[in-house]
Amino acid sequence: MVEPANTVGIPLNHAALLKDELDIVIPTIRNLDFLDMWRPFLQPYHLIIVQDGDPSKTIAVPEGFDYELYNRNDINRILGPKASCISFKDSACRCFGYMVSKKKYIFTIDDDCFVSFPQFSKSALRLCLKDCVVSMRDLVTVSVAKDPSGKAVNALEQHIKNLLCPSSPFFFNTLYDPYREGADFVRGYPFSLREGVSTAVSHGLWLNIPDYDAPTQLVKPKERNTRYVDAVMTIPKGTLFPMCGMNLAFDRDLIGPAMYFGLMGDGQPIGRYDDMWAGWCVKVICDHLGLGVKTGLPYIYHSKASNPFVNLKKEYKGIFWQEDIIPFFQSAKLSKEAVTVQQCYLELSKLVKEKLSPIDPYFDKLADAMVTWIEAWDELNPATKA
Amino acid sequence: MVEPANTVGIPLNHAALLKDELDIVIPTIRNLDFLDMWRPFLQPYHLIIVQDGDPSKTIAVPEGFDYELYNRNDINRILGPKASCISFKDSACRCFGYMVSKKKYIFTIDDDCFVSFPQFSKSALRLCLKDCVVSMRDLVTVSVAKDPSGKAVNALEQHIKNLLCPSSPFFFNTLYDPYREGADFVRGYPFSLREGVSTAVSHGLWLNIPDYDAPTQLVKPKERNTRYVDAVMTIPKGTLFPMCGMNLAFDRDLIGPAMYFGLMGDGQPIGRYDDMWAGWCVKVICDHLGLGVKTGLPYIYHSKASNPFVNLKKEYKGIFWQEDIIPFFQSAKLSKEAVTVQQCYLELSKLVKEKLSPIDPYFDKLADAMVTWIEAWDELNPATKA
Repeated sequence: MVEPANTVGIPLNHAALLKDELDIVIPTIRNLDFLDMWRPFLQPYHLIIVQDGDPSKTIAVPEGFDYELYNRNDINRILGPKASCISFKDSACRCFGYMVSKKKYIFTIDDDCFVSFPQFSKSALRLCLKDCVVSMRDLVTVSVAKDPSGKAVNALEQHIKNLLCPSSPFFFNTLYDPYREGADFVRGYPFSLREGVSTAVSHGLWLNIPDYDAPTQLVKPKERNTRYVDAVMTIPKGTLFPMCGMNLAFDRDLIGPAMYFGLMGDGQPIGRYDDMWAGWCVKVICDHLGLGVKTGLPYIYHSKASNPFVNLKKEYKGIFWQEDIIPFFQSAKLSKEAVTVQQCYLELSKLVKEKLSPIDPYFDKLADAMVTWIEAWDELNPATKA
Repeated sequence: MVEPANTVGIPLNHAALLKDELDIVIPTIRNLDFLDMWRPFLQPYHLIIVQDGDPSKTIAVPEGFDYELYNRNDINRILGPKASCISFKDSACRCFGYMVSKKKYIFTIDDDCFVSFPQFSKSALRLCLKDCVVSMRDLVTVSVAKDPSGKAVNALEQHIKNLLCPSSPFFFNTLYDPYREGADFVRGYPFSLREGVSTAVSHGLWLNIPDYDAPTQLVKPKERNTRYVDAVMTIPKGTLFPMCGMNLAFDRDLIGPAMYFGLMGDGQPIGRYDDMWAGWCVKVICDHLGLGVKTGLPYIYHSKASNPFVNLKKEYKGIFWQEDIIPFFQSAKLSKEAVTVQQCYLELSKLVKEKLSPIDPYFDKLADAMVTWIEAWDELNPATKA
């Protein structure tokens, strides 16, 4: 059985990689005690905390961390009417942090759970169903994983390695990431493709509780991911993947404006598709612009499953819709004129309006929010417009 | 440092999986002593040994193995003029074994080296360069690998598992093979795609000596693959990969006629592209027919590097040509009318003649040999024509 790492005694990483070029974005509802466990790895970095829900609540951040915190009042003040594109009462609000960051790289992880009642308990269920579905945050605890040797995994360090070395999206390398130490391109790999392309996204994984949808959670409540797969790989061009926002890093300069987590939570018909939506948009745009997306290491330890009944309520429309959304993204073609992320994203928003609105009026609203997001991004980041 | 497993003391697997439905195909030049190491895993199965080179030489097969052996005289007798499509003095001749098998599944591994002189020695180099390049076999020793717990890997058993469970080529699953124990499809994976498709190919990997081309061998003579990646994955639709023939299994009924290892060896301008050629054709056809290709586990232990100078001589044209061959296969489109592997393969042969012959007359000859191969296959396997 895998267990989370104990990070006590690990010295602070004073020579932290990319210390001045990376922000850590965390969406949260209450306190951030979970950061204590991550202290050896994360304390050298600047945190951007996006407070979800009631802005009158005070968020406690453990001492010693350098951070800025935004609540809903701040978001409304900074974005004005454009704040409508930022989800409320949903961790999708984290993407506001991507927008206000001035750094090149972002690492985002989920906060600790704000309440941890036993999974499947009747009282939990009553509590969940009584409340508005979208006001519930995932009951998640994310902690530091151990590698098979028992060493605590410095997730951020691995993400940085992934982002700083190229991707190989045009041909599959059977020995996984050819840029890792002890590996290379195998026989039969075209030499012209070995330089690779810039890596825009590093998607990390989770030991223990797997990131399953509600139906799979219900069917396999006891399944745990105990398999530490020591690999990083490029997701090939033309292939979509389910991007989970729990343990994710990206190059803001390369792909930031496409990292919009959509409209979830308060007033919206779905939840738990924020990261998926971002992942599908990001992958289509990375493929179009010749950028790479990596998945695999690093692992985090995911210790408390979210409530499958709550999740089912959030997900059920998404479960239907994704049957149309995936083919839509698989066939989405961007024009040659779209050469910046913003241009690509605006083209994609038009396609969403045209092709997905017939499924549900939600997509019409989402397409508009995508445009608002880009307008807000450009307002806060005038220089990133290439 | 990884070391090969010692299989002594492992009891024979009497309840061998698919015992009556699987043949093991081995191309060889001399004796097959290496089979002793594989005895616990392979002895229950039938072997098809394809003797490469001088047919007057006697091949010694360790006692207790059930086998049939074909030398060049047998190939000529059985195929008549069509024997021209089977390579001579090259392990590409192994595909004759695929053709004469009557079983549903094939597992193929390389034989032991016939001579093992130290890499880079001057005498070895002289010997290699003196001899016709294509008369030299790879100086390879393939033995049983150990998993991280130290247990000998039953490669064949893992291949069978891979082939018997479906593939998921249409969308990437971040937790790798969703059909493995302890794994599933993650959140965001469309339910309509979870049934998967039939798996046609299981591509295994190699610990210790990586399967590098000659330039990479020359640059990194000491690099060893010590990373045991505990994963099996589907290679996504539309993505090509470098298929290595050293540790490979496939479903002969599903993809057999596409497993042609081309024209290599005696009288041909290239070598070491036999498995690559087969892999590119196979992948294009699997994508067209909706079949799956898996890569990852099982590992074999590859203990002696082949001579990079010999390899360079064999490969150098291929290294140029693959820059055109890969884009050719990436853009190759088969017609809706091509619904059997044979029909797909014949269409592909026409495209090869049309698009690759301008590069070198070799491809004209190869395209003809592809047609001959299918004619020979259908002659020996009249029932498999769907």
